[in-house]
Amino acid sequence: MLGRLNHVAIAVPDLGSASALYRTALGVEPTKPQALPEHGVTVAFVNVGNTKIELLEPLGEDSPILAFLDKNPAGGMHHLCYEVEDIIAARDRLREQGARILGDGEPKIGAHGKPVLFLHPKDFNGTLIELEQV
Amino acid sequence: MLGRLNHVAIAVPDLGSASALYRTALGVEPTKPQALPEHGVTVAFVNVGNTKIELLEPLGEDSPILAFLDKNPAGGMHHLCYEVEDIIAARDRLREQGARILGDGEPKIGAHGKPVLFLHPKDFNGTLIELEQV
Repeated sequence: MLGRLNHVAIAVPDLGSASALYRTALGVEPTKPQALPEHGVTVAFVNVGNTKIELLEPLGEDSPILAFLDKNPAGGMHHLCYEVEDIIAARDRLREQGARILGDGEPKIGAHGKPVLFLHPKDFNGTLIELEQV
Repeated sequence: MLGRLNHVAIAVPDLGSASALYRTALGVEPTKPQALPEHGVTVAFVNVGNTKIELLEPLGEDSPILAFLDKNPAGGMHHLCYEVEDIIAARDRLREQGARILGDGEPKIGAHGKPVLFLHPKDFNGTLIELEQV
């Protein structure tokens, strides 16, 4: 069911300094920061060839990554996004297996304009998993 | 400098139940558990097409992931491993940029039989980064 790893999301307190760090220390070029107010984040992507690193900075007071940064002020790995062919079939299979879908269980349009769902990290060894239909 | 993402490592308290979860809920087939006593872990890999997920269970009392599991008893994302062409050149560049290399700074032979180094997570927004020369 799981397809390729679309991206690894890393929450950071400051996207400018994180981008500079990836550029100077790791020799990769993050994209320009892009504000996504409807998702409560500003993002920059690092293309590493086979997948992407998504650097996330909170945007606004309701940002979904604020609580994570309260616990991890320096930042940290936030979620893994896997591609699926059919997000409704994936959701139904997960529910049958007892896994919890976050929110109301209906796919939302994610940061890439495609339907996404998030799975409860307590059901997956502490890993927040995003599924994206591609 | 950073090449492709070789794997995402997830620490888990029990590799058998984690493997069963990935199989039944996520529809992917982890490899058979492989004990690596010299690295203090038992590992199983999940191939997701473009990269791998490495499920890590502690092995022995000196396991390097015991402290992480003490803090995160259910498990969690532990590190990201990127490929590099020349691990010594990568290390020297990182040092010049002020990044700290864990241990004595000399590459060790990692779980895949190739030279690896780990970078201090405090220097990379709370992300433990492994570099593997391929």
